[in-house]
Amino acid sequence: MITPDRRLLFGGDYNPEQWPEEVWADDMRLMKEAGVTSVTVGVFSWSKLEPRPGAREFGWLDRLMDLLHQQDVGVVLATPTASPPPWLGRLHPQTLPRDENGRTVWWGSRQHFSHSSSAYRHHAAAITEDLAKRYGHHPALRMWHVNNEYCTFDHGDEAARAFRDWLRAKYHTLDALNDAWGTAFWSQHVSSWQDVIPPRRAQYLRNPTQLLDFRRFTSDALLECYVAERDLVRRHSPDHIPVTTNFMPLWTGQDAWEWAGHEDVVSVDSYPDPRDPLGGQYNAMIADMTRGQARGPWMLMEQAAGPVNWRGVNHPKPQGLNRLWSLQAVARGADAVCYFQWRQSRQGAEKFHSGMVSHAGAEGRTFAEVKRIGAELAGLGEHVAGAHTPSDIAVLHDWHSWWAGGQDGRPSSRVAYEDVVRAWHRALWEAHLPVDFAHPEHDLSAYKMVVAPHLYLLTDAALDNLVAYARAGGTLVCGFFTGVADADDRVRAGGMDARLRELLGVRVLHEWWPLEDDERVDCAAPGGGLSFTGSLWSEELTAAPDAEVRARYRGGELDGLPAVLRRGRAWYLSTLPDPPALRTLLADAAAEAGARPALSGLPPDVEAVPRGDLLFLLHHGRGEATVPLPDGAAYQDVLTGDEHTGTVTLGRFGVVALAPRKRGRGAA
Amino acid sequence: MITPDRRLLFGGDYNPEQWPEEVWADDMRLMKEAGVTSVTVGVFSWSKLEPRPGAREFGWLDRLMDLLHQQDVGVVLATPTASPPPWLGRLHPQTLPRDENGRTVWWGSRQHFSHSSSAYRHHAAAITEDLAKRYGHHPALRMWHVNNEYCTFDHGDEAARAFRDWLRAKYHTLDALNDAWGTAFWSQHVSSWQDVIPPRRAQYLRNPTQLLDFRRFTSDALLECYVAERDLVRRHSPDHIPVTTNFMPLWTGQDAWEWAGHEDVVSVDSYPDPRDPLGGQYNAMIADMTRGQARGPWMLMEQAAGPVNWRGVNHPKPQGLNRLWSLQAVARGADAVCYFQWRQSRQGAEKFHSGMVSHAGAEGRTFAEVKRIGAELAGLGEHVAGAHTPSDIAVLHDWHSWWAGGQDGRPSSRVAYEDVVRAWHRALWEAHLPVDFAHPEHDLSAYKMVVAPHLYLLTDAALDNLVAYARAGGTLVCGFFTGVADADDRVRAGGMDARLRELLGVRVLHEWWPLEDDERVDCAAPGGGLSFTGSLWSEELTAAPDAEVRARYRGGELDGLPAVLRRGRAWYLSTLPDPPALRTLLADAAAEAGARPALSGLPPDVEAVPRGDLLFLLHHGRGEATVPLPDGAAYQDVLTGDEHTGTVTLGRFGVVALAPRKRGRGAA
Amino acid sequence: MITPDRRLLFGGDYNPEQWPEEVWADDMRLMKEAGVTSVTVGVFSWSKLEPRPGAREFGWLDRLMDLLHQQDVGVVLATPTASPPPWLGRLHPQTLPRDENGRTVWWGSRQHFSHSSSAYRHHAAAITEDLAKRYGHHPALRMWHVNNEYCTFDHGDEAARAFRDWLRAKYHTLDALNDAWGTAFWSQHVSSWQDVIPPRRAQYLRNPTQLLDFRRFTSDALLECYVAERDLVRRHSPDHIPVTTNFMPLWTGQDAWEWAGHEDVVSVDSYPDPRDPLGGQYNAMIADMTRGQARGPWMLMEQAAGPVNWRGVNHPKPQGLNRLWSLQAVARGADAVCYFQWRQSRQGAEKFHSGMVSHAGAEGRTFAEVKRIGAELAGLGEHVAGAHTPSDIAVLHDWHSWWAGGQDGRPSSRVAYEDVVRAWHRALWEAHLPVDFAHPEHDLSAYKMVVAPHLYLLTDAALDNLVAYARAGGTLVCGFFTGVADADDRVRAGGMDARLRELLGVRVLHEWWPLEDDERVDCAAPGGGLSFTGSLWSEELTAAPDAEVRARYRGGELDGLPAVLRRGRAWYLSTLPDPPALRTLLADAAAEAGARPALSGLPPDVEAVPRGDLLFLLHHGRGEATVPLPDGAAYQDVLTGDEHTGTVTLGRFGVVALAPRKRGRGAA
Repeated sequence: MITPDRRLLFGGDYNPEQWPEEVWADDMRLMKEAGVTSVTVGVFSWSKLEPRPGAREFGWLDRLMDLLHQQDVGVVLATPTASPPPWLGRLHPQTLPRDENGRTVWWGSRQHFSHSSSAYRHHAAAITEDLAKRYGHHPALRMWHVNNEYCTFDHGDEAARAFRDWLRAKYHTLDALNDAWGTAFWSQHVSSWQDVIPPRRAQYLRNPTQLLDFRRFTSDALLECYVAERDLVRRHSPDHIPVTTNFMPLWTGQDAWEWAGHEDVVSVDSYPDPRDPLGGQYNAMIADMTRGQARGPWMLMEQAAGPVNWRGVNHPKPQGLNRLWSLQAVARGADAVCYFQWRQSRQGAEKFHSGMVSHAGAEGRTFAEVKRIGAELAGLGEHVAGAHTPSDIAVLHDWHSWWAGGQDGRPSSRVAYEDVVRAWHRALWEAHLPVDFAHPEHDLSAYKMVVAPHLYLLTDAALDNLVAYARAGGTLVCGFFTGVADADDRVRAGGMDARLRELLGVRVLHEWWPLEDDERVDCAAPGGGLSFTGSLWSEELTAAPDAEVRARYRGGELDGLPAVLRRGRAWYLSTLPDPPALRTLLADAAAEAGARPALSGLPPDVEAVPRGDLLFLLHHGRGEATVPLPDGAAYQDVLTGDEHTGTVTLGRFGVVALAPRKRGRGAA
Repeated sequence: MITPDRRLLFGGDYNPEQWPEEVWADDMRLMKEAGVTSVTVGVFSWSKLEPRPGAREFGWLDRLMDLLHQQDVGVVLATPTASPPPWLGRLHPQTLPRDENGRTVWWGSRQHFSHSSSAYRHHAAAITEDLAKRYGHHPALRMWHVNNEYCTFDHGDEAARAFRDWLRAKYHTLDALNDAWGTAFWSQHVSSWQDVIPPRRAQYLRNPTQLLDFRRFTSDALLECYVAERDLVRRHSPDHIPVTTNFMPLWTGQDAWEWAGHEDVVSVDSYPDPRDPLGGQYNAMIADMTRGQARGPWMLMEQAAGPVNWRGVNHPKPQGLNRLWSLQAVARGADAVCYFQWRQSRQGAEKFHSGMVSHAGAEGRTFAEVKRIGAELAGLGEHVAGAHTPSDIAVLHDWHSWWAGGQDGRPSSRVAYEDVVRAWHRALWEAHLPVDFAHPEHDLSAYKMVVAPHLYLLTDAALDNLVAYARAGGTLVCGFFTGVADADDRVRAGGMDARLRELLGVRVLHEWWPLEDDERVDCAAPGGGLSFTGSLWSEELTAAPDAEVRARYRGGELDGLPAVLRRGRAWYLSTLPDPPALRTLLADAAAEAGARPALSGLPPDVEAVPRGDLLFLLHHGRGEATVPLPDGAAYQDVLTGDEHTGTVTLGRFGVVALAPRKRGRGAA
Repeated sequence: MITPDRRLLFGGDYNPEQWPEEVWADDMRLMKEAGVTSVTVGVFSWSKLEPRPGAREFGWLDRLMDLLHQQDVGVVLATPTASPPPWLGRLHPQTLPRDENGRTVWWGSRQHFSHSSSAYRHHAAAITEDLAKRYGHHPALRMWHVNNEYCTFDHGDEAARAFRDWLRAKYHTLDALNDAWGTAFWSQHVSSWQDVIPPRRAQYLRNPTQLLDFRRFTSDALLECYVAERDLVRRHSPDHIPVTTNFMPLWTGQDAWEWAGHEDVVSVDSYPDPRDPLGGQYNAMIADMTRGQARGPWMLMEQAAGPVNWRGVNHPKPQGLNRLWSLQAVARGADAVCYFQWRQSRQGAEKFHSGMVSHAGAEGRTFAEVKRIGAELAGLGEHVAGAHTPSDIAVLHDWHSWWAGGQDGRPSSRVAYEDVVRAWHRALWEAHLPVDFAHPEHDLSAYKMVVAPHLYLLTDAALDNLVAYARAGGTLVCGFFTGVADADDRVRAGGMDARLRELLGVRVLHEWWPLEDDERVDCAAPGGGLSFTGSLWSEELTAAPDAEVRARYRGGELDGLPAVLRRGRAWYLSTLPDPPALRTLLADAAAEAGARPALSGLPPDVEAVPRGDLLFLLHHGRGEATVPLPDGAAYQDVLTGDEHTGTVTLGRFGVVALAPRKRGRGAA
């Protein structure tokens, strides 16, 4: 549980070991000023805690924990295992990963550890256990944070052995592996477990199932590292101290559905680009995805108060944007709003990544905005902490499908899984429809509509789940290139699973016609009305006789063929409609299914999200927007105390958090 | 001989080891339906045939060969050596190639063998010989297919030793090598054979002749692999079984002129892009090149029935295009039309490469078109099989020139050899002029016109050959940057060979002026008329007094200098004229030389190609085209039986194969 | 001293070992024709001089030196150590560098030596000493040229040891190193010198100070190689023989300010792109930079008579451009004008790099122009040799700032140090203002104006220097992102050094707002007048109350904030103004400071540069330009003997070198 005291967490990564201790006092003062409730400590402190093999230097951390406790600032304490000290690589070179070209990944940055290295695991466990023993019952401790952004690959020899063990556990026999991998193709039959290697540099396209299993293995190997440390910190802490590790969202390396089940708190790092006009939609999507994984409140472990430093051009957040996106996270289920990092570094690789206290210090605009956010969050906890608002619509998302569908040698290299998912989420967001993310094997029965933007790989269980959902009256909308492959990345007979074809009304799928970057296909409803262009993809297919063709291709080689099909409440979109058309199609299907926005009559840039007893209105535009409130309803904005009836007007990046004053439906 | 029975071969790669044997019966049924006459078997079957070192698993292949023979489907049997089993790399790591950066090329794809590895050669010979012994006299056997698309490089130590041996055989002494390589430059003098290495990662530009010789060596080392296997299969087969290996055309790795001399049948893989508006011209060029190498009928070993899977975006073939290009291949000399592959894979790296039987199966559009092609080809063999129609024009092409001229450190990195050759072939194709490809040292006396689009390197023998050809009255048209270097990539005195300068009327070649990507030079005939833009290249030269300047540069630094020169029937084009101008220039020169289209009055998109007793008309457009037939002539289209006089109208991608009914020249 | 006899050096690299000796006689004849005074010999002759380990083959060089001496052609004799013979790499593989990915840099090109290899240093010293002993007193010897374009990196193990030694000498203790590198960040604390490695391939961003120190170390390690050879050749030569090594200008690898102090003659290679409309400005900048390093006359060691061969498209020099740029170098302080190389190679990696004698030979246009230049230079020495004309304006430039500011993980990857410096130099060049380059720690008191286009890193000494300069009344103009970091790349408190903020009138620097490639910000003077767009960068800052805002941002997030500030004579430009605006801003500041062009009323394309008793007018345009001469002054063009009063008209690429005839100020 993130907020046992119904206070939202507010704070950030705090790395005081980068500063002389005289700065700490200033930190404490400013933290109080900013309303910081907790900080994350120790994420990269291994070499500070264990400067030499076996040494333990806990004194500075003792002082720090005590100091924070005195200030009533809680601590999210990290195991420091994401960045081993240089001596580990020097003494145990096998802890350094190898990339697929055989190149060593050296120390000098961070995350230079092989998940499969026994020496790494041994040393990581030792420092973790000692840390847990020492601080597991410290009164400042609020949460354990294991490692950081698990994300490394290793193609070296120790990883090869671990990969073999993983495969042996999965397939039991070489025959089963050969069958699953289709090694009859290109003479890849393995006759010994020793024949199995990670995918390494090769002459041409590599075995797709080897690549897929290697990604599964990597996610599982990293998860093993997490679970081992989680178990150690749990063993030495009271039961109420939760354990988390922070996800990089929409990162391909971890199956976060699987991982979330092993966490007490699901936490995430969200870094929308301040220049992206749809940055707010991106932030919403990360929230919806993380909330889906958490199945309840979640933690925003990292965001930036200003610019990051890893884009080509790193834009600051303009005045108001930090507040808007922070409150948006709360509206969409976050019980903790934190930053990387508290005080912007003066040295090291991230010194141009912003902090809550920027290089300009307490005088800077950035800190002024942080203080305002801290003050506002302090008043929100009682309204929203712990509240979970499930929605009527589920967006299906699955890492295995992403891994399999994104490989080389597919019909099109232009289709990026994350772009398609984002396009569909955007359509729903712009239609003001609240959504959850879900896994295709989840129980979907509570949803009125389920959309599968682009699930190339669907297991038999997932297919049965979708068919059952649709048979029970649910609305299912599928995007192109869905249901193509089975769990082993074996193409289903007919190029699309027969169950799905039956459901969607596809009789024969002749050919996929992927589109060039600048290519568009014209589409139109047979009787007029809807008319749009599609991008990325099109398909040559024959519809089942009883399917309804909602739009046909116009012109080109596919002239007259079905572009959008439905059979009952199951829809198939064989292209990616332009944003307004996709929004219309999904909004129509949602309306038919009975899913509606939280408020009607919303202007385009305003998001309305209910949480707890509040209705958040979030304005993503730079002008003014007026939002009609329900007739007769009266609200108080808990951020300002202002009362609103009839309409509420939001300025640039404006937010109100409306609590109902009385409930009267209609009037006049 | 490809077609001893005058039946064109029709079929494709057949890899039934990827499927359960119960699918085989369905394969047989569909092959009969499609008119398949032969299939290529075993291309990547090594690990199936020898799953463990020394094992032999021939049972499945015995059953398959017998089954195919029962169905009267011939077998082109492949040696499986293009993709060694994983155990070979594991037990003999030195069989794995190293790239120029020292990175190992691992198994997990295909072609992970070093041509110079003795372990590879030993194991390849063993499985090849056993295969030949077992099936050399099998009644289904029609042809041997050695390996597949030989195309690998190795920069490792075993290849270094082989490279040294190759160089010793070529140069005999280190002095000769030092002289040829120009090692006085940059202190590269080798004082021991051990100083010689393959070109590997270096600080800056590498020795050009080392690079050139390494390409020659690689082509020869791969050829040795081929010849070794060819000799083994020949030893164990009847004399009438021909041997081939399939070329990747316009691929830089093999000197196909040299290789063709070691094959009984020259076969090629042709994969024009269905999206390329000039895909038909590309297919024609591959045909003309392969026919030149074969000096007669050739085999289309691989094409795609639909999309491939190795482009960024892989387009299917629209309705009719597979048929058009298949018949075009026959018109231009193919006696075999085959596909990769029979049944589209469900697993492995090429499961999104189309098959004759696509994922949609027998119901799909793709298979329907395959059946039509099979039926039509069955009727063509009696008219064309074995027939070779040489043409009046030769396009000169040479790998050594390509290798030398395409290196770094040249006047322009923008000039791609294959693009220039293609531009010239396109001009001739659009002018409806049939051409052969030839090597610059071939006997050219039968040709009325010879064009050398871009032969940077010309040996003394080639130069003497061209001069003799021109002196004997032949028309010779040379493109820019031709005759610059000798066989060792040594620049000829004056920047262009003196014999060639004399022939073409170039007195002094001051400087090359290569052009930027978007740069064009204006050119015009001195007296008006011809006016065009040139791209890629221009030159600052002084013409000989008796040369005729056909076009001059206009404006810019070269204003007034000669762009197109001729001296008698020898022409020099010092830029790449735009397509219409190049077509005009070449058509004029051809007309003067007496070379003419097969039919006059052809519309732009229609190709007319005579072969055997047929005149093929091939329409590459999507609309309709009407072709005037010779006055008084009457034809029957052997594909449909329709009779045509006066004109024939071709629909989208239409083809007729006209046999003369009576011969009446003119009338009225 | 370059020109003890007041004859300008004219010549080029001469590599006769690439040619049969019978060509040498022709070389001598043509050198006399061209007015060649000296040639550089032996740059890449190691394998010719020492074909086997320990062998010495000096015979050819004896003959060559004697022959040149007979012809009165001086010799700049090179140590041949830039390209070791293949046997060195074979016998001592540790002499071959490793790149940051661990890949070996093999022989086969040049510069395949590790600066830190003891075996390399040993063999280089041996051949250098023997060469010096043999030719140190040869009468042809004019200068020693050590190595060539020192520019290699090594990340291997021997370099790692040398890097550790260098760091130990700099920091003495690990604590000091840990502090300077900020190793508290990301757990990079080093507990043993063995933990320190060169920056190698890592998972993510690497330690910035490690990267910076590695560049410093590399420059110093190369300098050690230079100094070792310099000392050897000095030991065996008369005192009047100067020693040089040629710089690649604006190349990041060497701190040329440091290096220049170890040279008797500063020499440089200048290769402006003949296609660049501002090629003349580039050539001027290289001259100004090299003159600044030399603090007097310098040597143009290499330029191209025609095209180079290392660009994507290599353009020849149009008629007149070689002369224009050669005379420009002399005007800007060169006492030697030389080429790579004398005779264009027929073999090797640079055979398409032009020579003074091109492939076209003595008949070619290139050689004709070379002869003209040689003849003209012969008459200029008496007027300019040895003369140094310092200017009123200094452009500050520092490699350490470049190294630190150009790393990954900065606010913007779009800002290239060299582009910003070039933009500022261009503005001054177009304003006809002569400039020197200087180091920020140099004594600047002689300058009326100092500009710091982009000095991210400034040491305390440099800051104190700039402040003292400004306090003493000097005009200082600073560009954006200047004064951000200290010598260890530690960000200064406030994001910009407090001294500098105080000086420039910056109160709070809130955020940097770097711009996208195609993004521009509008700026305007508060009261109208100046109006321009800025690119690359903008800033959100609060001005000090007493600062004058010369331009504000208009529109966008920074609307109304200061873009250009001044406080007294200290200016701050927080964006990169468009070229006309930057020219205006700098010209205004210069005028106020009392810095003026050499001649007033100059047309845009004409450069006026005084040197010695001459005034050079150089016309960079292709049309005609008329230059007004001072009233009443009369000049003689020493190139032609023509007299000029009132005006002088220059044709395409025209140059006059005007000597005053009488001095009469005003008249009428």
